[in-house]
Amino acid sequence: MKIYRINLTHLTAVTEEVPPEWRALGGRALSSAIVAKEVDPLCHPLGANNKLILAPGLLSATTAPNSGRLSVGAKSPLTGGIKESNAGGSAAQKLTRLGIKAVIIEGKPPGKAFYCIHINSQGVIITEEKELVGKGNYEVVHRVSEKYGADVGVLTIGQAGEYRMTAANISVKDPDGNLRSAGRGGMGAVMGSKQIKYIAIDDSHSSGPELVNGEKFRAAAKAFAQALTEHAVTGQGLPQYGTDILINIMNEAGGLPTQNFRRGNFFGADKISGETLYDTILARKGKPTHACHLGCMIRCSQVYNDPEGNYVTSGFEYETIWGFGAGCLIDDLDIIAQADRICDDIGLDSIEAAVTVGVAMEGGVIPFGDGQGLLNLLSEVQKGSYLGRILGNGAAFTGRALGVTRVPVVKGQGIPAYDPRVVKGQGLTFATSPMGADHTAGYAVTANILKVGGYVDPLQKQGQVELSRNLQIATAAIDSAGLCLFVAFAVLDIPAAFDAIVDMLNAQYGLSLTGDDISELGKTVLRTERAFNRAAGFTNKDDRLPEFFKEKCPPHNATWDFTDEEIDQVFDF
Amino acid sequence: MKIYRINLTHLTAVTEEVPPEWRALGGRALSSAIVAKEVDPLCHPLGANNKLILAPGLLSATTAPNSGRLSVGAKSPLTGGIKESNAGGSAAQKLTRLGIKAVIIEGKPPGKAFYCIHINSQGVIITEEKELVGKGNYEVVHRVSEKYGADVGVLTIGQAGEYRMTAANISVKDPDGNLRSAGRGGMGAVMGSKQIKYIAIDDSHSSGPELVNGEKFRAAAKAFAQALTEHAVTGQGLPQYGTDILINIMNEAGGLPTQNFRRGNFFGADKISGETLYDTILARKGKPTHACHLGCMIRCSQVYNDPEGNYVTSGFEYETIWGFGAGCLIDDLDIIAQADRICDDIGLDSIEAAVTVGVAMEGGVIPFGDGQGLLNLLSEVQKGSYLGRILGNGAAFTGRALGVTRVPVVKGQGIPAYDPRVVKGQGLTFATSPMGADHTAGYAVTANILKVGGYVDPLQKQGQVELSRNLQIATAAIDSAGLCLFVAFAVLDIPAAFDAIVDMLNAQYGLSLTGDDISELGKTVLRTERAFNRAAGFTNKDDRLPEFFKEKCPPHNATWDFTDEEIDQVFDF
Repeated sequence: MKIYRINLTHLTAVTEEVPPEWRALGGRALSSAIVAKEVDPLCHPLGANNKLILAPGLLSATTAPNSGRLSVGAKSPLTGGIKESNAGGSAAQKLTRLGIKAVIIEGKPPGKAFYCIHINSQGVIITEEKELVGKGNYEVVHRVSEKYGADVGVLTIGQAGEYRMTAANISVKDPDGNLRSAGRGGMGAVMGSKQIKYIAIDDSHSSGPELVNGEKFRAAAKAFAQALTEHAVTGQGLPQYGTDILINIMNEAGGLPTQNFRRGNFFGADKISGETLYDTILARKGKPTHACHLGCMIRCSQVYNDPEGNYVTSGFEYETIWGFGAGCLIDDLDIIAQADRICDDIGLDSIEAAVTVGVAMEGGVIPFGDGQGLLNLLSEVQKGSYLGRILGNGAAFTGRALGVTRVPVVKGQGIPAYDPRVVKGQGLTFATSPMGADHTAGYAVTANILKVGGYVDPLQKQGQVELSRNLQIATAAIDSAGLCLFVAFAVLDIPAAFDAIVDMLNAQYGLSLTGDDISELGKTVLRTERAFNRAAGFTNKDDRLPEFFKEKCPPHNATWDFTDEEIDQVFDF
Repeated sequence: MKIYRINLTHLTAVTEEVPPEWRALGGRALSSAIVAKEVDPLCHPLGANNKLILAPGLLSATTAPNSGRLSVGAKSPLTGGIKESNAGGSAAQKLTRLGIKAVIIEGKPPGKAFYCIHINSQGVIITEEKELVGKGNYEVVHRVSEKYGADVGVLTIGQAGEYRMTAANISVKDPDGNLRSAGRGGMGAVMGSKQIKYIAIDDSHSSGPELVNGEKFRAAAKAFAQALTEHAVTGQGLPQYGTDILINIMNEAGGLPTQNFRRGNFFGADKISGETLYDTILARKGKPTHACHLGCMIRCSQVYNDPEGNYVTSGFEYETIWGFGAGCLIDDLDIIAQADRICDDIGLDSIEAAVTVGVAMEGGVIPFGDGQGLLNLLSEVQKGSYLGRILGNGAAFTGRALGVTRVPVVKGQGIPAYDPRVVKGQGLTFATSPMGADHTAGYAVTANILKVGGYVDPLQKQGQVELSRNLQIATAAIDSAGLCLFVAFAVLDIPAAFDAIVDMLNAQYGLSLTGDDISELGKTVLRTERAFNRAAGFTNKDDRLPEFFKEKCPPHNATWDFTDEEIDQVFDF
């Protein structure tokens, strides 16, 4: 395995050996280690001294189910701290098949030209790009696939990334040519600041990673697959309804943040629920279940068509539907699907965008519930108008532009989909994750709401600190393996699933890791990330929710009632 | 003396006794003590839990020369830290004559209505204000003076404050009905968030403060006046040319930041210099020298007329002329004077505005040197357009909106008028002041450039830490006395001037302070402010200049070369 170091100041690419201390790392563990080692925590995130890291997970391109995630790392222009954002799609597996452990992208071109990067078995080619600058991600993927073949992997930014908007994401082509997103924290702005429009990855003439013990690996992968099939969430709920199954669940729990976090239930929940989504997709001959990368067994994605049966969007997630839906009081799935498609196309994090539109509605830019207004706002982002530049920089930025004080963010990143007052374990994750408010960083909805991995009453403080801490540690390890976070549902309830992950890692690399080693890996990742943030100027004061969460959240009238000392215990390990 | 506590949530005002621990405080010492005691450091600066403090200095309304400054304090929406911004004008003296030690303005109206506050010898009246909402400060002052008499004191916000833009200032009427500004840190946005359009202060039927020892006071005041007359800067330079005398001086020193801090000299310096300003004012029958408050002996202000002899602006300062001039490559005093007037009228900090326009030019909104474009941009702020909302939130905000990385700010506040690489003592003040980048917080230009209070080579690191530290301590004390900072020129060179300040304080209050006590007061103020900032999440990482100051600054090719350890020594006292 090797590292490609691509320098945009000099337009060079060199191959480097993987240093010994990085050999046992992958995914988030590796991207965060590289950022921590090579990036000045006080650098401007859009300047020449920030670096963009691409790192497939440790199990990437093996037959391990659901191991196709690509970690993208940098100093975040949204939070000012370290960021790892991961996505499905085919890029991770292709990079691994080319023997690439990580790509480090550094520097900044001296002029204004954009570039494209082509990675194949011969190496790296950097070329000035003119045709696709200004184009949306769908067109980029289509055109690059025409040029290099349908199977080519693509990482791309839309207009939002070109404008260096701090809510811009990086899109990853999936096997069907649709878009997945390394969504959060403005990784698209970092790619845009380095003036890279797209990266094409051609893994022709390559082979999968070597396995030290193939037989043992296959047995473990099989056991892992069995656990994923067996668990109700990964085997049935997610495959049938996708993540949007959560709309009704969260609404009934009173924790579906509605109208910019004013209350926890939404009158229009039924119209945007997973069940309604499923029926609509079937009626329009879309695909209710669909995989975002080769080897995915959960297939939580789907293909959503318009009433005429034309493709609108894919990877249509609960958090997006929540945000444009309940968050903005819009109960029209077709409007929300169009908004999701526009976000994917312009390369804007749909979660940040949804929280932002809620704040813009709070500030009176458009009224709550105005679906056409929502689409108009996204079109302003696409155009890069001044309003678009406000919105494209996220919820905190938009709040300040408009003088709005009700702004649901932590570390400058919008809070997604789960009211922290009502799902208190999740609230602790939002408050304390080095990533800023991020539901995937320690998904306490499991034990708080879904009764997966035990049960911790979501409205009580007891047990939440340990829950959030343990989930954040486990998640950091899962993100390092390159596994989809959804494997956690099975891992939390089925001991054999966790053992299988350990066995796969040992069999692939000839190691003798224990479960404790995996946990230690997760802890190390979090410590590394937190140390970077400290060096960037963060303190425990950054681990706090905005003061308006002291208000009661109907219908439970729950408040955010953790003391500072309790919150600070989450990272006490 | 008493405190008025005005609550905008309940539209009430109550009189409170001055607590013992605040009795020996005034100005900045008092405003910072109140903010530190009463404001949650993590509150939203534009929310109900922030407070706006008005505090005249300890010597206010006495015959002490140049003692008319009003301290305005709050948590800053621009920096996120504590802020004291002080201004001349008549408000401080009138509040003191009414027996008011401080006004604490708290809460937030539940609706959208704006209010005006009338303070007189009978108490406080809060009334809904409709007519003047949306109007500029000149009109507000004119109309309020019509209503309450020409002598009424006025504090007001323009459109920028109403929009809660974080570069909005609070304007203070001067004895001639013109405008002075508590400029920096967004105090106007705090006043706007409390929905107060203006505060009228009528000191009819009031008398000056009591003096424990009147005779001793008068003798000390006389000695102080003599020192101010005697010193070349306060007795001759500032009265004749105003602060703009610095254009040629800084240009020759190579430390006049030009074209968004690209170099230290400006081809058009002569056209915007104090000498040219003086000649222009004389030719147009303006006033080359003018006092911003009763009892000012330095009279650094002026009245600048247009070619037809009509009033354009007053209080036309070096930093404003530098910013719109050299910073933006505009060498036309008439354009700059119009920009200054618009800033005053809409209530926008002209320093922050100038740094912001430099960043907007960097981002290509208008070209460098485009004078008419500058005026158009300020008109966008006045209108509250989306571009205006970007610009009105300052340089850091505008940089992020436009994806610009060359953004000269510390703690989110624009760096004024003195290149920190070339005037290194001043750079240390910019880096470390709890106020963010603020030249008045510790004006090392004295010893670095003007050879006042000794000489410390501006291009060398030696002696700068002590210089910045001592000046920051002394300034905190001067700001607490309510003295204009310019008395420091005399104080630094003439020992009798410092003794006179101590004597005046002792004579007024019947104290027996020593010089060390004054220094201790300054240290206490800084410690209080720094503790607030720590509690708000600041660390020593916030005491750093942006990374681009590592670039060389022609013509000296100086760089910012202090180590972190050296910078951190400034607050090591």
